Parts: sequence; C-alpha cells; structure tokens
Amino acid sequence: MHNPLSSGVPNSARGKVLVVGSIGIDCVKTPLGEANDVLGGAATYASVSASFFAPVLLVGVVGDDFPSAYLDLLASHGIDLQGLQRANGETFRWSGFYDYDLNQAHSLDTRLGVFASFHPTLPASYLDAEYVLLANIDPELQLEVLEQVRKPRLVACDTMNFWISGKRDALVDVLGKVDLAFMNDAEARQLTGTMSIVKAAREILRMGPSYVVIKKGEHGATLFSATDTFSVPAYPLEEVPDPTGAGDSFEGGVLGFIAYSGDISEHGLRKGVVYGSVMASFNVEEFSLRRMLRLSHSEIAARYREFKRLAFFEALEDAGDLEAL
Amino acid sequence: MHNPLSSGVPNSARGKVLVVGSIGIDCVKTPLGEANDVLGGAATYASVSASFFAPVLLVGVVGDDFPSAYLDLLASHGIDLQGLQRANGETFRWSGFYDYDLNQAHSLDTRLGVFASFHPTLPASYLDAEYVLLANIDPELQLEVLEQVRKPRLVACDTMNFWISGKRDALVDVLGKVDLAFMNDAEARQLTGTMSIVKAAREILRMGPSYVVIKKGEHGATLFSATDTFSVPAYPLEEVPDPTGAGDSFEGGVLGFIAYSGDISEHGLRKGVVYGSVMASFNVEEFSLRRMLRLSHSEIAARYREFKRLAFFEALEDAGDLEAL
Repeated sequence: MHNPLSSGVPNSARGKVLVVGSIGIDCVKTPLGEANDVLGGAATYASVSASFFAPVLLVGVVGDDFPSAYLDLLASHGIDLQGLQRANGETFRWSGFYDYDLNQAHSLDTRLGVFASFHPTLPASYLDAEYVLLANIDPELQLEVLEQVRKPRLVACDTMNFWISGKRDALVDVLGKVDLAFMNDAEARQLTGTMSIVKAAREILRMGPSYVVIKKGEHGATLFSATDTFSVPAYPLEEVPDPTGAGDSFEGGVLGFIAYSGDISEHGLRKGVVYGSVMASFNVEEFSLRRMLRLSHSEIAARYREFKRLAFFEALEDAGDLEAL
Repeated sequence: MHNPLSSGVPNSARGKVLVVGSIGIDCVKTPLGEANDVLGGAATYASVSASFFAPVLLVGVVGDDFPSAYLDLLASHGIDLQGLQRANGETFRWSGFYDYDLNQAHSLDTRLGVFASFHPTLPASYLDAEYVLLANIDPELQLEVLEQVRKPRLVACDTMNFWISGKRDALVDVLGKVDLAFMNDAEARQLTGTMSIVKAAREILRMGPSYVVIKKGEHGATLFSATDTFSVPAYPLEEVPDPTGAGDSFEGGVLGFIAYSGDISEHGLRKGVVYGSVMASFNVEEFSLRRMLRLSHSEIAARYREFKRLAFFEALEDAGDLEAL
C-alpha cells in the first residue's frame, strides 16, 4: 500500500490535523453504478484526504464488525488510530442513493450503531493537535472534543441538516468556538432562514467563525470573511460516478494543506480551499475512496496547476483594459 | 443622459458590434418587487451593455406603440438605430415572474406582436460589422442576418428552450455557422440530452462553434473550447432584485469587450467573459435596465478588479506548494 507520507516534507515539520467524525460502512447507488459495504464516513474521507498533506489523528468509533482491512488501509496512510475506539456492536452504516442532481443525497437507511453511545476521549498525544476538523457528527460530540484539545491554531467544523434542525443550540455553540465553518449551500440557507447565500454567509460569520466556506458541489466553493470573498470553481468533470464524501475530502484537503503550509492567513486559506477542491475532484471520480487510495502527490500538484489555469484571466497586478478610460 | 462613448477610446479605433434580437416591453415580478411596462428584450439588454465598450448597431423591430423615450434612451448610448424597424402593430411584450430560484423565469404571457412578421434587413452601413451577436430570437431570423453580413471576425449566438424544441434544425444550422455559442445550463442539457454540462459543452462544440459559454446564473459562467476550460464565478450579491436580462447583458459585455480589445484569442475571450460577468452583475442590481443606464466606466473597471481579487489564489507562474514533493 502506498504511503503518501513516506516521501517529501518530513512529518515533524508539519502541524497535525485532528479529525473527529463518523467512520462507517456505506451502500451507495448512483445513476452510474453502485457500491455495497464500502468504507465511508465523514471522518474517513476527511482523514485520508488530509493525510496527503500532513499527519492525521483520527477520533471516532467502529464496531466489532468493522473489517480489519479497512483499519490497515487507514494506517497505511499514516493515520494515527490511537483515538479510534473499537466498541461492541455494529459500525455506523449509511445507505443512500443519488439521482441526477448529485448535490442531493437521498438517505434510505442510517444506523448509528456504536455511535449512539460514543463519547470521544482523546489520547494524550492528541491534545496538542494544532489543527482540528470537527467533521460531520453530533455537535455535542464536537463540543466534547473542543473541551479536550489545548491550544489549536485553527478549528474547523462541518454539520448537516439533521443537526441544524435537531440540535441547533449545540451547533450554534460550536459555531461560536470555531475559526472556520464548512457548510453546503442548502445547510447555510436552512441555518439562517435566508435564500441569499451571501447573506447567509454573513450571518454565519456573525455567529463566531472568522471564515465560512460554502460548498456548492459542481458549482465549486466560496470562502467568506468579514471583509473578503474568494470563489473557486469546481473541476470540470465529464462524469461524477459517486459524489459521496466530496465535501469531506474537500475539508480534509483544506485542513491538510493548512497544516502542511502552516499558513492560516486568508491567502493560505484561499490556497487550502483550492487544494480541497482538488481532493474533492479526485474523490468523486470513483466510488467510495477508491480513487483517493491510489492518488499520488504529482497528480495533486498537476490538478492544482489545472485549477490555476481554469481560473486565470489576468494577473492581479495588471491594470484592467478599461482602467485607461 | 450620460453617453458612455463620449470619453475614452475613440469609436473609430474599435470594432462595431451588430446585435439582433428582441426589443420589447416587459412586466416582471420577483420576490423583491415588480416593474410594469418597462424596457426589455434580449437585444436591448445586450446592446446597452455592449455600448459601454464599442459602437453598437441594433437590428430588430418595434411597434407603433413603442415609447419614443425608449428610443431616445438607446440613441443616447450611441446605439445605431438605422437597423431598427418601426412596424404597424404592437411591440413584443413579455410578462413573467421569478420565485426564489432566480435561474428560472416563469413566463405568464408572451406576445410576439410585430416580431411575428419581422425579417431583418441590414442597412448598408451594417454589412461590414466585425462582431455579430445573434441574441435570443427565432434561429431562422438569425440565419437571415448571417446571410447578409460580409466578413465578421466573430459571430456569437444565444437561444432559448422554445427554439431548441420548436426549431431545432434551424438552430443546429446556426450553431454550424457561429464562432461562439452562449447557452445556459438547462438549455445546453436540453439541446444535447445529457445531464453533464461538460459533456453537453463538448457536444455543442462538435456542432460547429470554436467556443461555448455555459451561463449558470448565480454560479457564474464557464467557457469551453476543444482544448481548454475557463470558469468565472458570479459576483457575490446579497440580493438580486431582478435577474431579467442577466444573460443578455452578459453577452453584450463579452462581445463589447472583444470589439473594444480586438482580441479574439482564447485569452481575449476569457477577459470578455469576465467583463460580461461584470455587466450582468450590475444589471441584476435593479429592475429593467435602470442600473445599467446610470453605470460608469470607472464602476465597470472597479468591479473587474473585484473579480480579479475574487478569483485569485496564486499567480499562474508560481510553483504550487506541493511541487517540491
């Protein structure tokens, strides 16, 4: 198994990314195929994605039915599994499908299994993690993680419609404690009760985070701060066999790159958002994590260059043609 | 009335843009207001938008009920009205509304009026127009214009769902004769019978044009050629009072800028697509053409700079951070 961390910048030079969220087994059907009993879960996608850039510390739980091959696979990506609990019972399972609107997952069955009684306990070696990604999970569990970490440089969170309607207070509490909030457009609208994505983003910023990234699937992503906006298009793919995990691998790429570069300035975040888009674009090319598991750094670097070309029309410092008028 | 052509680059240095399409009177209702009996029509929006960059030659027809104030308004923007026929009968009228999905116009009433028996006859002074925009109109009329112009440097066309289903053969004929096709995402899907916008664009390119621009409303626009792709995000507006004419003012901006710069290379087109996005972003800020009619060149230049900032993450020539790995 390819270990992406075996070459390049030494681990010690990079900040570590702590990822908490679901680890599960998925059954997914899309117009282009299906995959059954495959590795899934928000934290899984995010961890593997981040692992291409920085060391990852995983926090979550699996049941006693979780295939050891999947654990080996995570370990082979250099992901630290000390914070992964093994509990008696069934691993978290999700079954769903996508129609032609790939931005909309339709859940057929969600079984929390061992997640129903899970509480994160961070190993001592995790407590000084510099970057924290609270991937999609119960916001009360996200808060439990935040109570344990000491002084992270940057904390990011994700959520979903289920928590926005069911645990709004806890979620607002989380938003008050993070630096960066990830949300897709529908979630941002739901949380704020406004149709305008720009207004919704501004309202979320007022809840606490310094940055909000609105994920728009095939339409790319937009990073908002109080004073600035950055939009990156999605990579133009002819086909998207399976959008599952796109948002999670995006977030893993953002946090991973920030940990790699150590740059938490707005400019660093912009680049992180592009690397996140790179990772998401690879992830959706095949079912489950198949594409990411055979991805190389040179492919990531090449697609990043393609993103630069995709968005380029004039150097920032050049005067526009109409300036002369 | 402000004449945008009165300052800056002399007209003689710029190519002229011939615009053919509907000129009409609209009644529009949106969640943020309504406007009745206002100036509208694809060619109107496109002409006024293009007039900020280059001299415009308008081809179309109005009825004897068309307010002379609207003619004065077009003339005050330096738009040549020699090709505008005045016929006995009612001017083209469109009534419609938008719900919260601003990408979807709902037509309540469309009355062709004098457009039902219209055939374009180009004045002699129009025949050498270098740039031609076949704005949304019956593709058979678009073909009649193409039969008359002599040697345009660049021809672009737009269309709509009505012609895709009703006059497909004529439309395919048009597509075989243009350099640049504008279409929104739904139209591209309808024309090609594919859900994938990337596949649809490639299929449209095979029909003839060297370039296709897919307009995606609040999600920006993407320019496709056989070998390259360029995406520009939409300008992040908090509110969009009236999306009517967004696509037309976009196209007018693209053609106007290309005529202004004379640059029909792919790089020139990329910049044109951004200036088009600038014009569309202003146009939707108010009902009808109100915002465009009090727009200045310095506002256009400033928003173009904002677009550069909106899309910037790294200079094209810089090595990506992962290149070192």
